[in-house]
Amino acid sequence: MHTISQYQDSFIAFLNAQIIAKEPQNLYKPIDYILNLGGKRMRPVLTLMATEVFDADYKKGLAAAMAVEVFHNFSLVHDDIMDDAPLRRGNQTVHEKWDLNTGILSGDAMLILAYQYFEQYEPNIFRDLAKLFSKTALEVCEGQQWDVDFETRNDVTIEEYLKMIEFKTAVLVAAALKMGAIVAETTAENADLIYEFGLNLGLAFQLQDDFLDAFGDPKTFGKQVGGDIMENKKTYLYLKAIAHAKPDQQLQLKELFNVQFEDNDEKIAVVKSIFQESGAAQMTQQAIERYTLKAFETLEKMNIASDKKQVLMEFGKNLMKRKV
Amino acid sequence: MHTISQYQDSFIAFLNAQIIAKEPQNLYKPIDYILNLGGKRMRPVLTLMATEVFDADYKKGLAAAMAVEVFHNFSLVHDDIMDDAPLRRGNQTVHEKWDLNTGILSGDAMLILAYQYFEQYEPNIFRDLAKLFSKTALEVCEGQQWDVDFETRNDVTIEEYLKMIEFKTAVLVAAALKMGAIVAETTAENADLIYEFGLNLGLAFQLQDDFLDAFGDPKTFGKQVGGDIMENKKTYLYLKAIAHAKPDQQLQLKELFNVQFEDNDEKIAVVKSIFQESGAAQMTQQAIERYTLKAFETLEKMNIASDKKQVLMEFGKNLMKRKV
Repeated sequence: MHTISQYQDSFIAFLNAQIIAKEPQNLYKPIDYILNLGGKRMRPVLTLMATEVFDADYKKGLAAAMAVEVFHNFSLVHDDIMDDAPLRRGNQTVHEKWDLNTGILSGDAMLILAYQYFEQYEPNIFRDLAKLFSKTALEVCEGQQWDVDFETRNDVTIEEYLKMIEFKTAVLVAAALKMGAIVAETTAENADLIYEFGLNLGLAFQLQDDFLDAFGDPKTFGKQVGGDIMENKKTYLYLKAIAHAKPDQQLQLKELFNVQFEDNDEKIAVVKSIFQESGAAQMTQQAIERYTLKAFETLEKMNIASDKKQVLMEFGKNLMKRKV
Repeated sequence: MHTISQYQDSFIAFLNAQIIAKEPQNLYKPIDYILNLGGKRMRPVLTLMATEVFDADYKKGLAAAMAVEVFHNFSLVHDDIMDDAPLRRGNQTVHEKWDLNTGILSGDAMLILAYQYFEQYEPNIFRDLAKLFSKTALEVCEGQQWDVDFETRNDVTIEEYLKMIEFKTAVLVAAALKMGAIVAETTAENADLIYEFGLNLGLAFQLQDDFLDAFGDPKTFGKQVGGDIMENKKTYLYLKAIAHAKPDQQLQLKELFNVQFEDNDEKIAVVKSIFQESGAAQMTQQAIERYTLKAFETLEKMNIASDKKQVLMEFGKNLMKRKV
């Protein structure tokens, strides 16, 4: 097996070899720009890793990995428009650097380009990849819609929130891994199990993101600590606190999440203490643990050599150890 | 062979049988809305017609026809955002009835839904359809980008304009027909010939649209006569007039296309007379004729029964006879 950084290097070399800056330049330059803003390339790495886990040359997974990365970046471009976000990875977002129409149209082209990467496989693999991709892409759209809907709703349940992050984040992690399984032509059982592994790991990952957003170390956490609290995001932490805090703290939390503050430092401090005192912080950590363990359990059932399982488990453990 | 109105009825019945209004409703209701605004359903009809022309049950083409129609409507939703258009087929556009974000996200979902309709075919047909679809969809994006770029350019050539309308309009007409050929599993030669037929017919159709926009009968032309002139659109008529009018009329035309007027009636009248006197109107009619004949010539080469060719030719003739 290769290492994560070998997959990353190999993927970046593949990405750089693509000729994306074609004509019309106003359509393709923004695509080239967003794809080269960097990032950990976690999703394409997962595709390559899964390809090798199921005993194929990981390079066979490169085109599928590229489709996953192009799709992920498509969703960033369109989401950044919807969130009116000025920055992405410390650089201007596409609609800021160019304009709204460029963001829409370049995003559309990326979604189509993603499908085209599957054309490098033979018909049966092509079909399996494209089917999984369409299902996943539609779920990501649905997840994004739920996320938008939840902003103006005050009755979101924990189950609804979990479904939203499953669709918005976890299904793409799961699909990235399953694409490796499809490319490697392993059994349907193995393909489904690695999907389950990815889905649970993706949920754990997103819940950890929620947790670190409040309790992460400002020195190492990539985003602004307290960002979700400032934006009144009803995360797992918030929903659990609303469900378990004492009545007066529930009321205080609801009030804090209904107003915009000049100075957010005090709000963040108060909200964090309610997250702690209500047990919400601990419950979130327990949920992260639970989904991580559930991911590892599906590994047990997988019909592959134990050193391969070890690789996937190590990846999961490292992902969950992160403080950034 | 069935009639156009039989194809239309059959397609509309198929469309109505689709369950599109799923959850989250804010994502799927706009899709249901735009798909049910009506229209002539020309593109899906072409898919059904081609399926039958190549000796398969036209019903086999319904899913591919649906993909074409869903894609076409996706492009309308996103184009209407880019053009800031309030109305579509006499009704509110999606981003007007809902909002910008809904327009973007519902459009994205439609692009993915279009691909999913191909899943009803076996792997080889699925792959051929999806490949053609991706190529076409990307060309439509490129055509839209050229169209946007041309708005701010004063050096657009006739060749560039023809390439733009080929990508923005004609390739989808051509692909709609070729999808029927793929579904019917005819020869690659026939499939390529019907694509050529559609491409030339699509070009003729768009040039006729340009012509009727200036010279159509206000009583029967669906859109506002003179709309392109009001919006300073550099159509085939304009480009030919600039190339062939006398120097003073060239200058006058350029000036008229650089200013916004309170009262457009006089501008429209002057521009139309320049289109006539410069020979641009006649040249446009000749180009329409030329592309129509070119379309009919490809029919000659096609390896199908002559009554089938007759059906395609009649369709083309009717399309070109239209005054609306």
